[in-house]
Amino acid sequence: MSDIEIAQQAKMRPIIELAGEKFGIPAEHLDPYGHFKAKLSLEYLNSLHDKKDGKLILVTAISPTPAGEGKTTTTVGLGDALNRIGKKTIICLREPSLGPCFGVKGGAAGGGYAQVVPMEDINLHFTGDFHAIGVAHNLLSALIDNHINHGNPLDIDPRRIQWKRVVDMNDRALRKIVVGMGGAANGYLREDGFDIVVASEVMAILCLATSRADLKERLGRIVIGYKSDKVTPVYARDLNAHGAMAAVLKDAIKPNLVQTLENNLAIIHGGPFANIAHGCNTVTATKTALKLADYAVTEAGFGADLGAEKFIDIKCRMAGLTPSAVVLVATVRALKFHGGVAKDELNQENLAALEKGFANLERHLSNIQNHYGLPCVVSINHFTFDTDAEIQLLKSKCEALSAKCVIAKHWAHGGAGAEELANAVLDIVDHREPEFSFVYDSELPLWNKIEAIATKLYGAANVSASPKVMSEIKALQASYGHFPICMAKTQMSFSTNPNSKGAPSGHTVEISEVRLANGAGFIVAIAGDMMTMPGLPKVPAAERIDISDDGVISGLF
Amino acid sequence: MSDIEIAQQAKMRPIIELAGEKFGIPAEHLDPYGHFKAKLSLEYLNSLHDKKDGKLILVTAISPTPAGEGKTTTTVGLGDALNRIGKKTIICLREPSLGPCFGVKGGAAGGGYAQVVPMEDINLHFTGDFHAIGVAHNLLSALIDNHINHGNPLDIDPRRIQWKRVVDMNDRALRKIVVGMGGAANGYLREDGFDIVVASEVMAILCLATSRADLKERLGRIVIGYKSDKVTPVYARDLNAHGAMAAVLKDAIKPNLVQTLENNLAIIHGGPFANIAHGCNTVTATKTALKLADYAVTEAGFGADLGAEKFIDIKCRMAGLTPSAVVLVATVRALKFHGGVAKDELNQENLAALEKGFANLERHLSNIQNHYGLPCVVSINHFTFDTDAEIQLLKSKCEALSAKCVIAKHWAHGGAGAEELANAVLDIVDHREPEFSFVYDSELPLWNKIEAIATKLYGAANVSASPKVMSEIKALQASYGHFPICMAKTQMSFSTNPNSKGAPSGHTVEISEVRLANGAGFIVAIAGDMMTMPGLPKVPAAERIDISDDGVISGLF
Repeated sequence: MSDIEIAQQAKMRPIIELAGEKFGIPAEHLDPYGHFKAKLSLEYLNSLHDKKDGKLILVTAISPTPAGEGKTTTTVGLGDALNRIGKKTIICLREPSLGPCFGVKGGAAGGGYAQVVPMEDINLHFTGDFHAIGVAHNLLSALIDNHINHGNPLDIDPRRIQWKRVVDMNDRALRKIVVGMGGAANGYLREDGFDIVVASEVMAILCLATSRADLKERLGRIVIGYKSDKVTPVYARDLNAHGAMAAVLKDAIKPNLVQTLENNLAIIHGGPFANIAHGCNTVTATKTALKLADYAVTEAGFGADLGAEKFIDIKCRMAGLTPSAVVLVATVRALKFHGGVAKDELNQENLAALEKGFANLERHLSNIQNHYGLPCVVSINHFTFDTDAEIQLLKSKCEALSAKCVIAKHWAHGGAGAEELANAVLDIVDHREPEFSFVYDSELPLWNKIEAIATKLYGAANVSASPKVMSEIKALQASYGHFPICMAKTQMSFSTNPNSKGAPSGHTVEISEVRLANGAGFIVAIAGDMMTMPGLPKVPAAERIDISDDGVISGLF
Repeated sequence: MSDIEIAQQAKMRPIIELAGEKFGIPAEHLDPYGHFKAKLSLEYLNSLHDKKDGKLILVTAISPTPAGEGKTTTTVGLGDALNRIGKKTIICLREPSLGPCFGVKGGAAGGGYAQVVPMEDINLHFTGDFHAIGVAHNLLSALIDNHINHGNPLDIDPRRIQWKRVVDMNDRALRKIVVGMGGAANGYLREDGFDIVVASEVMAILCLATSRADLKERLGRIVIGYKSDKVTPVYARDLNAHGAMAAVLKDAIKPNLVQTLENNLAIIHGGPFANIAHGCNTVTATKTALKLADYAVTEAGFGADLGAEKFIDIKCRMAGLTPSAVVLVATVRALKFHGGVAKDELNQENLAALEKGFANLERHLSNIQNHYGLPCVVSINHFTFDTDAEIQLLKSKCEALSAKCVIAKHWAHGGAGAEELANAVLDIVDHREPEFSFVYDSELPLWNKIEAIATKLYGAANVSASPKVMSEIKALQASYGHFPICMAKTQMSFSTNPNSKGAPSGHTVEISEVRLANGAGFIVAIAGDMMTMPGLPKVPAAERIDISDDGVISGLF
């Protein structure tokens, strides 16, 4: 059965009933969106202020390959397993973006018997959060050009506007455009472009905001560009945009509750795309889970070099969170791919390739243990083609690095298939105090922060940038030197070359662009050729998506 | 008190409870969106198939002025009044668009004590229908450029793509753009543009579709442009886009239920902007109201020359609907404005100007009575500055044209203020059989249909078009000659000149552009300088919109 077919057979429970029964959440604090999705009021979260936090478990992965790893699936499976063995657990996931849903990837709500439901809703629109983010972002964009059109009293330099527009679609034609064509009635001609919604600073702001007041304050301090003196920033608040932007986000700021196939509570809230964004779910969602449950299992996007790094250095730093353990997800297939095996030969045993590809896992594991200071369990998402010899090799190699390696079968068996993983995780979080650390100190200059990430985590020999980018970083250092870095880098490799598999070393990380995200409170450093607007493949997934006359959706996967 | 303050004091009842109690709608057929909005399943509507229809009452207005007329307010007031006097009534409104909400107009959910609630939600996002329409539209746009980028096997002529992109924002800078800049990775350079979401053909399709199957079929037959032979149409179904587009609209197709301040049921579903779109709510919504209630009160956008004409010639024709009566809304102030009085002098009695401006009302009334064949009640939205002499003059002039004229005070008094209006309407609908007719016959050639609208309704002497537009109309005639016309014209005047008040005659209507809307099933004829993407004013309403730390919204009006 396909994922969507399994999901459609789920016996879902009314979410308000479930949330009340399992966690005592009063119905008046829940806004239903249909019968199986609900938003939780911020007031309820505030009422839990004095409650002790549960333990935070981060699920991350090796560098992704076309073979598939299953990070979301593992997060769901681990959560279900912890609940099965009597541990009060909530999982926190990130909302899928429509772009990849229509593109290559398909849905993003787990897989097999480890899914969150209602799967179609979660993948299509969900509770409208990303639409609200898009509107808030594009309202600011429209206000900028409108301001210039009506005489530009703020003296915005139209050549130095850095606030683009967004759409929740993979649409390469919009990456770089000219706006304002067609004569005087349409304003002034200038270069512009669209990013995908998840790359919007508004997404990062929503994810990091701790209250409505903080949200509005952050929106107000967005720097949209500079005045004609080239140096004076223009803020969103100068355009009186932040009040309306915050109003547009009035519901988006509330965490969304859904359930797993096994009727355990899941919170899905905030941003994916850890390659170009910070790629973590919202601070609000994580804090809610920590207050409600004894264990909160959350994921960070792509490999541990991207999602986990930003989870640690941006989200945990800003929100004062301390993870207790990390689960590093891998598959035998993906490791063989990192070892050089072609995609259609991954089902054959190949110990040499597995040993070679293990270098990718080893680097991630070492980063987690040594640079984040966190204990780690390696979870191997089981495929039927995995051989005993391969699994034994993997286990012994992990143990040599003092990490337990567990074979997890939640994809086929749901929570029951991940009980060993759950127990391995509990062994750590219930008995070890993490000696958690950041990869770099806040006081380090921006350039050195970038170097720290690249040399410590990516295995790079050095970082380079054009004189133009260097001088931009220097200019940002004066006012924003204390900000963390949000790296935008391919998820496919430790280097900036997506084809460089395994654990490349000694390479140079070229910073091609930097962007100030003053509302989010970080500096985006774009490494290599990263695009903040994806394109669609030759045969987009959208061509397979369909709906029957009686409303049953197919082709989401 | 402002509208939003009145709305925030409403004693709303849980919508599922209300729908069950008043109309026996079972809870399982309602998807809640929060506690005060819900979507009704299409299956429930289908189950009412054999039930007798109620009577359909259309609310329309004189040509709008900056003085304000209050069509939505009257629709709400009339509905509440009919319910007050014991008539089972449902009102059907159109969903507000975010563009005007941030622009000049503010909200669109009634006013004073005749409003639908929750007002903030209805104005901001509502249940996400317009976002879904935007995504469905832009998915098709992305698929077009992606198809060309990957080799263009359908041989689409990039210069003849007529499917633009959309955003729910007043953003003049996007009216005319160049896409695909930045080199090979971003596709092919071409001219493009954005319309506001409500102007999307997907909106019209959603409004006119009678089932999921009909929706998908219509989406599939959208003509996105032509092949390089210049004449062979390329359909959305050629790009395999229609299945995913219909899936994206899975919830948007379901009518939305809310309530009035007086706890009467209202259905709000589908498209505004009768100047550039067809501007009627959905056929599904109207049919639901007719099945559930004895009286369905609905509105059509702007003046009776635009919204009402399209309601009759497009919506009623396609859906087989027959209205029983029309309410024509006017204000003394607006009529004086049509008579030449400046905006800041409208509060002073001016019988001469009123008499002069009455020409606008007279033309609309005559159109309704003679060209739509429908009985009409004139409803004067009362303002405190209206003098007895002015009201008497208005009443006597209406009576001379065999139309009853009623002063309605629902803005100040809710349903109680519109009881006289309700009784006047009942007098007609319960005792007269309408001799309903269309303005033109389906068999008339396209050009003659345009002429019929312009000469019969607008008072024009003739219609003109450039040779290019004439030849486009001629080309469309061969395949689409049976389609009705969707005129896009300024709402401010019977002519194409927005400053020409009253009832201009003998003018020429210049058709500047025609567009095929094959999925909707009509031809858009753009008269004069109409734009399908509005701009923001010098001080946009967005600057006043705000949200407090505890989530209370202000500045929507």
